[in-house]
Amino acid sequence: MMFEKVLIANRGEIALRVLRACRELGVRTVVAHSSADADSLPVRLADETVRIGPAPSRQSYLNAAAIVEAARQTGAQAVHPGYGFLSEDADFAEICAENGLVFIGPPPQVMSALADKSTARALMSRAGLPLPPGSVRTLPTVAEAVEVAAEVGYPVIVKAAAGGGGRGMTVVRSAAALPRAYARTRAAAQVAFGDDRVYVERYLTDARHVEVQVLCDGHGNGVHLGTRDCSVQRRHQKLVEEAPAPALSAATLDALAETALRGVLSVGFTGAGTVEFLVDEAERCHFLEINCRIQVEHPVTEMVTGVDLVHEQLHIAAGVPLRWRQEEIRLHGVAVECRVNVEDPDRDFAPTPGRLDRFRPPGGPFTRVDTHGHAGYLVSPHYDSLLAKVAVWAQDRACALDRLERALGEFDIAGAGVRTTIPFVRRVLDDAAFRKARHTTGLVDRLLADRAPVPTPAAPAAYPPGTSVRRTR
Amino acid sequence: MMFEKVLIANRGEIALRVLRACRELGVRTVVAHSSADADSLPVRLADETVRIGPAPSRQSYLNAAAIVEAARQTGAQAVHPGYGFLSEDADFAEICAENGLVFIGPPPQVMSALADKSTARALMSRAGLPLPPGSVRTLPTVAEAVEVAAEVGYPVIVKAAAGGGGRGMTVVRSAAALPRAYARTRAAAQVAFGDDRVYVERYLTDARHVEVQVLCDGHGNGVHLGTRDCSVQRRHQKLVEEAPAPALSAATLDALAETALRGVLSVGFTGAGTVEFLVDEAERCHFLEINCRIQVEHPVTEMVTGVDLVHEQLHIAAGVPLRWRQEEIRLHGVAVECRVNVEDPDRDFAPTPGRLDRFRPPGGPFTRVDTHGHAGYLVSPHYDSLLAKVAVWAQDRACALDRLERALGEFDIAGAGVRTTIPFVRRVLDDAAFRKARHTTGLVDRLLADRAPVPTPAAPAAYPPGTSVRRTR
Repeated sequence: MMFEKVLIANRGEIALRVLRACRELGVRTVVAHSSADADSLPVRLADETVRIGPAPSRQSYLNAAAIVEAARQTGAQAVHPGYGFLSEDADFAEICAENGLVFIGPPPQVMSALADKSTARALMSRAGLPLPPGSVRTLPTVAEAVEVAAEVGYPVIVKAAAGGGGRGMTVVRSAAALPRAYARTRAAAQVAFGDDRVYVERYLTDARHVEVQVLCDGHGNGVHLGTRDCSVQRRHQKLVEEAPAPALSAATLDALAETALRGVLSVGFTGAGTVEFLVDEAERCHFLEINCRIQVEHPVTEMVTGVDLVHEQLHIAAGVPLRWRQEEIRLHGVAVECRVNVEDPDRDFAPTPGRLDRFRPPGGPFTRVDTHGHAGYLVSPHYDSLLAKVAVWAQDRACALDRLERALGEFDIAGAGVRTTIPFVRRVLDDAAFRKARHTTGLVDRLLADRAPVPTPAAPAAYPPGTSVRRTR
Repeated sequence: MMFEKVLIANRGEIALRVLRACRELGVRTVVAHSSADADSLPVRLADETVRIGPAPSRQSYLNAAAIVEAARQTGAQAVHPGYGFLSEDADFAEICAENGLVFIGPPPQVMSALADKSTARALMSRAGLPLPPGSVRTLPTVAEAVEVAAEVGYPVIVKAAAGGGGRGMTVVRSAAALPRAYARTRAAAQVAFGDDRVYVERYLTDARHVEVQVLCDGHGNGVHLGTRDCSVQRRHQKLVEEAPAPALSAATLDALAETALRGVLSVGFTGAGTVEFLVDEAERCHFLEINCRIQVEHPVTEMVTGVDLVHEQLHIAAGVPLRWRQEEIRLHGVAVECRVNVEDPDRDFAPTPGRLDRFRPPGGPFTRVDTHGHAGYLVSPHYDSLLAKVAVWAQDRACALDRLERALGEFDIAGAGVRTTIPFVRRVLDDAAFRKARHTTGLVDRLLADRAPVPTPAAPAAYPPGTSVRRTR
């Protein structure tokens, strides 16, 4: 039985995404929001709203007690956490369960095991997933770290076991630099995660970031929905994503998808999840981590499979057996998405919050926009800078890239002091290696080092002005 | 070889649609526009623009000489006429050819033959397409009309041979009413088309309007792209369209598609076209007419096939052999589109032109919007009232309808005196017969006769306001 009412414990475009899925399934929505978001689009469009606290996330979107209380007050039966915030917080999932609320995500113990990267590595290694050379266990002394690093060869990466989403990692290029990096990563991890355990892996340069989308129900069934390539990253934050992963052999793609599904099924995973890998030039695959939530880049998978992942999350959480058999999941064409962040690519991607005076997203054929933006919207400095995602579909990759260029050229965003990452994304789309799908995770650094001038942000995000021949008859 | 530059001889959403296709294919665009459209979105986004005349269409969008001159001045190699205006004007196609311009559409002699409904009926009958009972030739005397009507049985419909697009037709329910209807239709046809030839057909009530999309190149190759149902019509103007046509047997759908393709190939048709049929309760099919242009409702076919029809029009016009074999055209899922017209459904769908103060179209998963609207846009009284098309895709029809409801609920359009057809479309989507795909072309008249109150237009097109629980912590 589908839920009657779901509380959405998030903001921005993902709150709107979840709201849309609920509405399409006839589920009433409660949006729990901070004061800063009181006039936001998800709040305006919700069936019910609860203000759970002031702008700072710790007092609102990370305030588990307030969210649970909001669900109780409104009679919501389940909580959708979106991504970020409490979406991978096993304690929050536990609190939900204790309060009779369905947390839309995997069971708390699975989240907890997978959130610990060191445990996740051990579990996945046992399930047969290939790990990058390095330590399976955490390394409590610098001597052990030095030993492992010498074994796997430099560069290495020191990773916090409790890290994730690109945080808590230090790349080390020589033995001389290791002791300091080791100490610094432990200290930083202690501050950030309250857990200073670290491990050491070979750092793969010139690799691709490839991930597999999976869906598993509570009845032991699971399917994979193919791969995504998210190699266009700046400091481990994805900028451009596509499905399926290009330029890899069908054998590699199949193997990735199958091992990923085997991995998550082996630990009792349920819901929508992503298994991340690095793939080197020889197409050797190395397990990175598992994300226990809907991903920012999920639209590209939806576009190539026709499966609405948020619908499926809701069905699974409601106890419905998986509605898909593996042979029913077919991939069609290519989808590419880019993130439009309110940041200045010319000033080290510094956030540029402010009021949007104009906001007209692109439209037309095979073009999807997910955004909470609108004319008059105040981009808050309190939250992350993602304003919109533009995703396109086409029969082939070249056409998809041309279409994304076209769509970005239409996007009209303007506000005093407001800059977006659109000009930088357009540089990515223009890059010869990217066009040929020969890029790796090093692409963004190379573009930034090249320092070809970014199209001046003063020019509106619009087509180059055309000459205008005027005649009046 | 693809064109370097194409002139778009149209306005509104279809001008934008063609512009997007050109840009995606690397073709420069010239938008030929009236004074009234000088600040419109297609004009703003074009590479080049030419003002071809004042607001009235006769002096601008129907001004063949001005359009050809604009193409000459800008060096455009081809003209895309969109739909309406000059898109089915064989003389214009001829003038283009005489001036060394490629007209993006079928050869003039094919357009000319198919524009004459009586000729089209004769040609298609010869190609084996089933005609509704009635006269194949035109009827120059009322006596002949009376004779044919008596033969086929009432109700009948008197149709102008030169009519089309729902114009030049009179339904007659009894022999007594025929002479006057015959005379009136001839007189009206003379005024409207300069051609008073008419013929008589059996009028099919409780039928479905089903059409087949075809693509043919200049090398004798053709494919069909399945069916669309456009039975939701008010005075022969479509309001809601879907692909594929629902609730018909696979045998009927296949037969329709194959005979339609055979019909157009038999007359040397090229480009994108539509073969329209009426299908009665017994699934008997009756040929209606052929449209020689891109249709308003083409997005639903694009969504279920993944084929970009405007790309294909451009490739075909550029002489490229058809890029698709029939077996490569696969249908996936269901797409439903509705038209958002600036009209007041409570006042007989009278146009309500005016300035848009707010304009925020829907977005998100599997949702496509084609619109030239934006905040501040002045809806002109000079042109037709189509402001936007909202199309959605889903795995099945029920989900597609829920998704369209969701999308329409998000659409925020407001301006002094401005009304839209959204409330009426929502009544269609709520109709039990429509939900079950048991509706016919009589649906809209039934809804209008029912006169259940249309949701008050004072309420913004937004979700019902939710109760708001407010807590500040």
